[in-house]
Amino acid sequence: MSKEKPSLPKGTRDFSPEVVGKRNYIFNTIKKTFEKFGFQPLETPAMENLSVLTGKYGEEGDQLMFKILNNGLHEKKEPEKEKLQENWNKILQQPFSTPAITERALRYDLTVPFARFVVMNRNEISFPFKRYQIQPVWRADRPQKGRYREFYQCDADVVGTKSLLCEAEIVLMLDEVLSNLGLTDFTIKINHRGILAGFYSKLGAIGKESDLLVAIDKLDKIGEEGVTKELQEKGYSNERITQLFKLLRVSGSFEEKLIQLEKIFNDPIGELDNTFKLDFQEIPHDEFWTNVAESNTDWKHKKAFIDLNKVNSYLSKLNFKNFNRLEFDPTLARGLSYYTGCIFEVKVNNVKMGSISGGGRYDNLTGMFGLPNVSGVGISFGVDRIYDVMEELKLFPESAQTSTQVLITNFDNQSEVYALPILQQLRAANIATELYPDQVKLAKQMTYADQKKIPYVLLIGSEEIASGLLKLKNMRTGEQESLGVEEILKKLAI
Amino acid sequence: MSKEKPSLPKGTRDFSPEVVGKRNYIFNTIKKTFEKFGFQPLETPAMENLSVLTGKYGEEGDQLMFKILNNGLHEKKEPEKEKLQENWNKILQQPFSTPAITERALRYDLTVPFARFVVMNRNEISFPFKRYQIQPVWRADRPQKGRYREFYQCDADVVGTKSLLCEAEIVLMLDEVLSNLGLTDFTIKINHRGILAGFYSKLGAIGKESDLLVAIDKLDKIGEEGVTKELQEKGYSNERITQLFKLLRVSGSFEEKLIQLEKIFNDPIGELDNTFKLDFQEIPHDEFWTNVAESNTDWKHKKAFIDLNKVNSYLSKLNFKNFNRLEFDPTLARGLSYYTGCIFEVKVNNVKMGSISGGGRYDNLTGMFGLPNVSGVGISFGVDRIYDVMEELKLFPESAQTSTQVLITNFDNQSEVYALPILQQLRAANIATELYPDQVKLAKQMTYADQKKIPYVLLIGSEEIASGLLKLKNMRTGEQESLGVEEILKKLAI
Repeated sequence: MSKEKPSLPKGTRDFSPEVVGKRNYIFNTIKKTFEKFGFQPLETPAMENLSVLTGKYGEEGDQLMFKILNNGLHEKKEPEKEKLQENWNKILQQPFSTPAITERALRYDLTVPFARFVVMNRNEISFPFKRYQIQPVWRADRPQKGRYREFYQCDADVVGTKSLLCEAEIVLMLDEVLSNLGLTDFTIKINHRGILAGFYSKLGAIGKESDLLVAIDKLDKIGEEGVTKELQEKGYSNERITQLFKLLRVSGSFEEKLIQLEKIFNDPIGELDNTFKLDFQEIPHDEFWTNVAESNTDWKHKKAFIDLNKVNSYLSKLNFKNFNRLEFDPTLARGLSYYTGCIFEVKVNNVKMGSISGGGRYDNLTGMFGLPNVSGVGISFGVDRIYDVMEELKLFPESAQTSTQVLITNFDNQSEVYALPILQQLRAANIATELYPDQVKLAKQMTYADQKKIPYVLLIGSEEIASGLLKLKNMRTGEQESLGVEEILKKLAI
Repeated sequence: MSKEKPSLPKGTRDFSPEVVGKRNYIFNTIKKTFEKFGFQPLETPAMENLSVLTGKYGEEGDQLMFKILNNGLHEKKEPEKEKLQENWNKILQQPFSTPAITERALRYDLTVPFARFVVMNRNEISFPFKRYQIQPVWRADRPQKGRYREFYQCDADVVGTKSLLCEAEIVLMLDEVLSNLGLTDFTIKINHRGILAGFYSKLGAIGKESDLLVAIDKLDKIGEEGVTKELQEKGYSNERITQLFKLLRVSGSFEEKLIQLEKIFNDPIGELDNTFKLDFQEIPHDEFWTNVAESNTDWKHKKAFIDLNKVNSYLSKLNFKNFNRLEFDPTLARGLSYYTGCIFEVKVNNVKMGSISGGGRYDNLTGMFGLPNVSGVGISFGVDRIYDVMEELKLFPESAQTSTQVLITNFDNQSEVYALPILQQLRAANIATELYPDQVKLAKQMTYADQKKIPYVLLIGSEEIASGLLKLKNMRTGEQESLGVEEILKKLAI
């Protein structure tokens, strides 16, 4: 047995009771809303077969996966060991194709396991399937402030429907969760992949949208002039740049921006433009979009416009009150390539912190496992970031940090014997109570209560036993009251 | 991207929403009791350094650990690769000493990570430290019915006190948790390592207790005669065998058994006996036990007797009502070698299932990491077994399986628009509600409600819109009522 000082693997954390309490406060707040909206919990194993995970997260993902060494390698017989050696040589060249040595890895996100679950259980699932999932994921990233190798994801997705009611409900859920956590100043940004795939493509020719996005991203730093110059250098015509800035300059409320969007989209974009005007009141039916719009760049941004309008209309009818928190942001891109419709991101204002939530619609998530055309939309909360923001803004309520309500002190045998039935009476009334198990100095017992943030200490000495009036000390205010057991029960009743 | 049919790693499981609901019912019931008794939640990472885990679970444990392949092996330069090759050769011989290839493994239980946490945080922890921990562990066991490679453990431990109040509270917690889960016919078995280390040693000479235990284990099958024969063959004198059967034949209530135990322990055991009689009323103080009894076989079973009496006394004073469920079982052994005091095991009667809970006191858990003399006592619930027992006995309440309370059907645009504000009204009253997102056939929507076990469906058609009276269908009874929104809110209020 090694007696060296034990340590934690790099990038991982223990969560002490205080931190678990606060984290659970966040998780429970999120769960409550998810469930109120009809989402049900799903759990998948920590390990997945490498065949399920490989190739789903790009080359970087494949490298950052934690792979599990197969067991019993040393028990293999000679010819098999030779084969192992061949496989080992491959591992030394590239980190894949090594089923003889490793065939499982730790879950890298919750989306791919969810897609796997849907495909494996497609005959039992009643669609639309609304699931939420709160579990850790593992990535061999270089650890740094705020980035861990084990961290929780907290996802809700609905698959099997294209209804934009789901997008509207995501906005409602984001608003409700963050409000319930005590946040007041945040922005729910929304964009649509159709803007990028349609409008930006028209501006910059397909496949070169990233030039545009890179330039747009610098808007804050180098201003319109700087961006204009950069785009001119990359060969964009002034006509197109003008059109781009019209889009970037949309302003006002969510609805006002949508009205400006309509004008921009119906304004021809110089020599490239071959769109025909669309009367947006006459919304084409679903099949049209599936068959025509989704394969046609000219239509994608118009689909985006219609989707965003529908979301707006749903939110109004759902009596959404906080439109001031909803912002159409045409520069929002989100990295994940599988998004095809609306995309979301939430930013807490006046706090130095990246987005605390994000998500969007995807049309073909289960296609990777051979089940095409299952559209869905999902959202993910970044619990570590939310935790840090809440610490910074001091939003955790005291109730998130306490478990024990009362500590009964233990002076001597007599007081212990007197305390035992009272201990159980308090517990029977659902009041979390402890009797200090050893007869040590009172100061030590009080320190224990202090460090554990126990709000009440019940002091029982010979005087108290004689009178039947026990001393209840409020550890926050320092106040002491002499009370009978019944009074104590009443006072502390939950 | 592979399009082969996805699958789960052997021995792992997805937990569907229905199963998660039931499992959470068990977890929440356990948590509630743990917290009422002052235990606080701790969480540790899934991965631990191999230096922390290796050698803590015997050779079998070392082999059944899931080891994580180090990342970036293919990026190493030439001289390092040579070293890797040497390490690889070692892996092919034996599964250890391979830090260049694997230096982390998945957590094998919750006890060693707990001990590691205590040692690493000993200066911040306020002892006695009462923690509970509910997290998965991983073992590369051969999968079979009821045995999985990923399963949850659910532990509560208190360390830093030798008080037998903790043992008594464990009995209370076991009784409360299982009662709250709806179980009525179960037995909490209790024994003490001192019986094994003291009395059995005296009977069979130290180091050969296992012969005794193996023989005792067959008592049910081969009867007293068979066991006697077997022990005679192994060289045990009739005198000693008689003494053994006195112990095994203790009967009656917990207290009655303890009284019989006193007689047996004060009865000399033939030629081997060199004990002096002990007046059990005069209990020696702690130091005596630490310095003398624990190193002296003659005293160990007397310490056991005193401990069990103290537990009995605590339970009486705590007004424990269910002594009929508490059984002193001198044959209870429990495999784990680190137990040194009371040991526990819980068996559900009249159900074919191994023990659903177990635990005990240990005196030196953190000694493995260089911090000696931290005594503690803990208990662990086997959630998978409890789940199976509860399924068999049909103990899960319906509330464990539902999340959504109301499904609002979606006929057409008019009914959808009418439904949207009602949907939010219900949610605002904390009633989990969904509006079916698509306008599909009613039968499909009803099937959805059925499969998701949604208890109420709210039907809104043109008639209902005209009258303002909506049809609320109880999916269990089939009953339908026509009610205004306010009445529906009142009826479904939580």
